[in-house]
Amino acid sequence: MTALKNDRFLRALLKQPVDVTPVWMMRQAGRYLPEYRASRAQAGDFMSLCKNPEFACEVTLQPLDRYPLDAAILFSDILTVPDAMGLGLYFETGEGPRFKKTVSTMADIEALPIPDPQKDLGYVMDAVSTIRRELNGRVPLIGFAGSPWTLATYMVEGGSSKDFRKSKAMLYDNPQAMHLLLDKLAQSVTAYLNGQILAGAQAVQIFDSWGGSLSSAAYQEFSLAYMRKIVSGLIREHDGRKVPVILFTKGGGLWLESIADAGADALGLDWTCDIGQARQRVGAKVSLQGNMDPTVLYANPTAIRQEVARILASYGSGTGHVFNLGHGITPEVDPANAGVFIEAVHELSAQYHQ
Amino acid sequence: MTALKNDRFLRALLKQPVDVTPVWMMRQAGRYLPEYRASRAQAGDFMSLCKNPEFACEVTLQPLDRYPLDAAILFSDILTVPDAMGLGLYFETGEGPRFKKTVSTMADIEALPIPDPQKDLGYVMDAVSTIRRELNGRVPLIGFAGSPWTLATYMVEGGSSKDFRKSKAMLYDNPQAMHLLLDKLAQSVTAYLNGQILAGAQAVQIFDSWGGSLSSAAYQEFSLAYMRKIVSGLIREHDGRKVPVILFTKGGGLWLESIADAGADALGLDWTCDIGQARQRVGAKVSLQGNMDPTVLYANPTAIRQEVARILASYGSGTGHVFNLGHGITPEVDPANAGVFIEAVHELSAQYHQ
Repeated sequence: MTALKNDRFLRALLKQPVDVTPVWMMRQAGRYLPEYRASRAQAGDFMSLCKNPEFACEVTLQPLDRYPLDAAILFSDILTVPDAMGLGLYFETGEGPRFKKTVSTMADIEALPIPDPQKDLGYVMDAVSTIRRELNGRVPLIGFAGSPWTLATYMVEGGSSKDFRKSKAMLYDNPQAMHLLLDKLAQSVTAYLNGQILAGAQAVQIFDSWGGSLSSAAYQEFSLAYMRKIVSGLIREHDGRKVPVILFTKGGGLWLESIADAGADALGLDWTCDIGQARQRVGAKVSLQGNMDPTVLYANPTAIRQEVARILASYGSGTGHVFNLGHGITPEVDPANAGVFIEAVHELSAQYHQ
Repeated sequence: MTALKNDRFLRALLKQPVDVTPVWMMRQAGRYLPEYRASRAQAGDFMSLCKNPEFACEVTLQPLDRYPLDAAILFSDILTVPDAMGLGLYFETGEGPRFKKTVSTMADIEALPIPDPQKDLGYVMDAVSTIRRELNGRVPLIGFAGSPWTLATYMVEGGSSKDFRKSKAMLYDNPQAMHLLLDKLAQSVTAYLNGQILAGAQAVQIFDSWGGSLSSAAYQEFSLAYMRKIVSGLIREHDGRKVPVILFTKGGGLWLESIADAGADALGLDWTCDIGQARQRVGAKVSLQGNMDPTVLYANPTAIRQEVARILASYGSGTGHVFNLGHGITPEVDPANAGVFIEAVHELSAQYHQ
């Protein structure tokens, strides 16, 4: 494979020295970009973008052509895994993701297969290798998957949910069934992420979008335990280079100490944590990724730069910080403001790396 | 006024000894109760219930007739205050609260009046005194208001919001305007809660439903600072008895130490905090109210009792705990399960008060 021209992102995740703080944005290939909207219109819909490796590659690279980002992230969806387990993912306009089949009994769960990455999710593996080839070493490529708890909520609810009524009822009412589901998902996600790593992903992130909806005790038992299991089964070195793992539990700020103990290289932070306090709490165990409120991108350039400066100062000197938003960039953001944000991170962070 | 027959709730808030842990539920007068749905159908709609003191009294007392609750809470809505400021509150079926007018410029904010509780919110004062009379000393009555930041989000967005785009854009883009709005709201809420206390509310709770959507720095400056201002202006003793103040920031678990310093008697906790850890963090400064995940009420009675037992054990021995859900009870809950929950708190907590 081609040598990596910009490895700041991987170096910061591994706490190696960098010249400036690396930066990328969750959902950087997304609806705020007119070129993304054009590709999506051409492909037909969201899942057609995901399932076609050429389209997935095209939209993955679009933000890199606009901004000096330090990483690319595979364009895909966390729900590819339950889809490959036979649930039938589809998207209804304005409604978000839906499944044709849901999971509610022990028998439903026992019948679920563990998908084979090559056979059942080959389109994702192809997208990863296509993107790696087209990136040609510009920046590293991040692979990703949803956490078992997060995937389980969609599978039990049949789609998005406000209060996770059915999935939490299963958790409290029938914990054995929920544990079996989570265990199957942990096996599936481990194989899926290892497939991505072998296909060329140079770092992987586990998105625990809904772990923060749980009580502290339930989070430990039903979300973190299964992410720990995945981390312990991942390929951590490939092609002569370490493959860092990032865990991101949205709303997980209360539990950083225990998340830092799960064996990953880095934690993603949403914007409710002070990153300086988070650094003190996790110590030298992990790097931190985050954590600007994405809505700051609705403000003026001066306010955006001030907020970047505040977060950099809070983290302080030294490596171990990957700048990011605390959640995905939203469709209504002006692309020029995303540019202001990314430039500000590079410009204002140099002083912390001398 | 009649002597209070059950003052466990007030005693626990003030860290005085109690026989068992007192319990009430946020939204205990609500749609999960068939008698509430009947009253609401009779009144016409939600705001007609709020604006008619007899109806408001009727639904406030309904859950007390079913369950051995240790407190009643005024039936009303946090948006009565912006309504009294002239914004024109209405409810669209399935859409939640809406305002006819919104606030977006400094001129809009300068024009907002500070409502007079008697003249502009007399229906709430009448509801409080009617309920106090009808309670006849059974349990204490809680008054409440929304926090300035929470009210500001509705006033700027024109209703509910997922990402608080407009209100956060104002916060970052035009902080002077946001501060003026929050200052006017703090003055309005202080007068409103003092009006409720003089009309008979025996404790008050400030609901900061959306403070948890802010970054740590923005929370301190734009939400907590204004709650502190309100607390410092409240009547803290009335009719020969202390009037405890409870602050509840949903999603505020990361900031408990600073919330505990705001001068209130108690903090409300959502279910993401471990209550035992919260107790260690705030020390003797404040009591704690919470914190069972409301979705546990979808589970079976054994699971509900187990979760109550877990939370009681986590808090441990001694006073200073008011049991509650971490958020409002949801419409789909079986009323029998709410009964199991309340009985379990009384039965299982006696051992911690010997």
